[in-house]
Amino acid sequence: MRVDHQTAAPVGATAIVGVGLIGGSIGMALRAAGHRVVGIGRDPARLDEARRLGAIDEAAASADLPEVLRDVAVAVVCTPVDRIATDVVALAAAGPDDLLITDAGSTKRALVERIEADPIAVRRFVAAHPIAGSERQGVAHSRADMFEGRVCALTPTERTPPDRLERARCFWKLLGCRIVELDPVEHDRRLALTSHLPHAVSSALSSLVPPDHLPLAAGAHRDVTRVAGADAALWASIFLENRTDLLSALAAFRSRLELLEQALSAGDRDRVEAWWAPGRAHRMAFLEENSGKSVASRADAD
Amino acid sequence: MRVDHQTAAPVGATAIVGVGLIGGSIGMALRAAGHRVVGIGRDPARLDEARRLGAIDEAAASADLPEVLRDVAVAVVCTPVDRIATDVVALAAAGPDDLLITDAGSTKRALVERIEADPIAVRRFVAAHPIAGSERQGVAHSRADMFEGRVCALTPTERTPPDRLERARCFWKLLGCRIVELDPVEHDRRLALTSHLPHAVSSALSSLVPPDHLPLAAGAHRDVTRVAGADAALWASIFLENRTDLLSALAAFRSRLELLEQALSAGDRDRVEAWWAPGRAHRMAFLEENSGKSVASRADAD
Repeated sequence: MRVDHQTAAPVGATAIVGVGLIGGSIGMALRAAGHRVVGIGRDPARLDEARRLGAIDEAAASADLPEVLRDVAVAVVCTPVDRIATDVVALAAAGPDDLLITDAGSTKRALVERIEADPIAVRRFVAAHPIAGSERQGVAHSRADMFEGRVCALTPTERTPPDRLERARCFWKLLGCRIVELDPVEHDRRLALTSHLPHAVSSALSSLVPPDHLPLAAGAHRDVTRVAGADAALWASIFLENRTDLLSALAAFRSRLELLEQALSAGDRDRVEAWWAPGRAHRMAFLEENSGKSVASRADAD
Repeated sequence: MRVDHQTAAPVGATAIVGVGLIGGSIGMALRAAGHRVVGIGRDPARLDEARRLGAIDEAAASADLPEVLRDVAVAVVCTPVDRIATDVVALAAAGPDDLLITDAGSTKRALVERIEADPIAVRRFVAAHPIAGSERQGVAHSRADMFEGRVCALTPTERTPPDRLERARCFWKLLGCRIVELDPVEHDRRLALTSHLPHAVSSALSSLVPPDHLPLAAGAHRDVTRVAGADAALWASIFLENRTDLLSALAAFRSRLELLEQALSAGDRDRVEAWWAPGRAHRMAFLEENSGKSVASRADAD
């Protein structure tokens, strides 16, 4: 895993496919940096809202791709993870040779495989995952500083064209990201633990606390359940795209809880304390890792 | 469960046994309201720190109880849950007949049983759990507004003297609490779900994410793992005091995760979405319940 903190170089006009929370935030950040942004989507009302909120300069229908992409340098696909590969292949077929296509999907392995099976798309595409967001949905919650200081994981393979990779680094840096590069398989394995598992755990916990218990719920409940408020369809797509790794993570998680249950059943105080220790140590490492960074202070990051 | 929002009446001088995060915050709130506060503890250096930080007016050693308690109206026990019963019994033996003894323990059933087995303590004691705190420890993190707008659960039984119960309500309201009254057994059953389980889950998750994965961890990880940073000894005591209810909660939690695993293994999108739905609905109910209350906005509440 390589972390690169170089400053960003400018990029050309950008098309954003799927202008929700993430696509809208990308548009706002690009427009704040003086770049032209075209929003592409299936729902004209949502594109109108995006334009009204300053996330895009103009809207275009998916049907007009060749026309729209003629003077676009970068296309960013921000649709749900199970639609990204199809959208990337369509953009590659319709766009100019020198188009850079990147995405903002939370999973990488399966969609990279599908895209690399397409002879045109593989020559234009660099897989990306800006690790930011919110449990809230839609362009109304977008913000120009969404990616400021946040990590963007790029997952190139040996088939990724070096020139596109370099342009993708510049593009995501322009949005304020710190670039981390790693293998798509490793990305999904790690994100299963750092993002998909906490979402599953958050939802499971929230589901077990009936509304009449809520007067007795405070900060621990509030924080552990925050991301349970996220969208079902969005997270079902992510869970299913990465189900092998998520299943491994869930099994490891249940085993870890079973160790606590054994220590509690035995009434063994030393074992309960020893069980608690690594979680606390890793939490301290997380706080140190993020000391002074926006992820440590922002209240709604995904 | 009864919720009472009446305003608070003034109370007399207060002794606080155990002046850490919670005891110190009680002291600061009482002193801000013009009341005299005596700190009682085993460690003179910690009591000195508490006095220096304005959490207590004066310090006293546990050995001097009869002398200290002579002109004290209320004694609040803020020691770890497995020491509270012993401390309450000692205060009852040493204090005047009209002393009100209350506590701030996160579990109630076992300690109430132990205290009610003592013929003197049972006539002075009202069990309380102010549901506030932080993953941070010690009087250095205390704050006078810790309890402002937060729920304090009182768990009287049919053996609790009505006059002490009324005085306990006034005392906790003076600190800014909203009073909720319920049975100690029900309290522990509910808190196992609303507080002890989220702490266990937070620690388990944090333990599974190795430090080299942390660059890929963002807001979901940050929030789900926050309370994993709490103290091992403190939480081992709470877990063991309430181990029967916590074991039930852990079993229910693991079953809930197994349902997700089955839906994922089957690749069944509808079942994954349906699995997600109740957690999201309960999260929305929590946000509504706490709309405009301090628990919804404060970043570090327990």
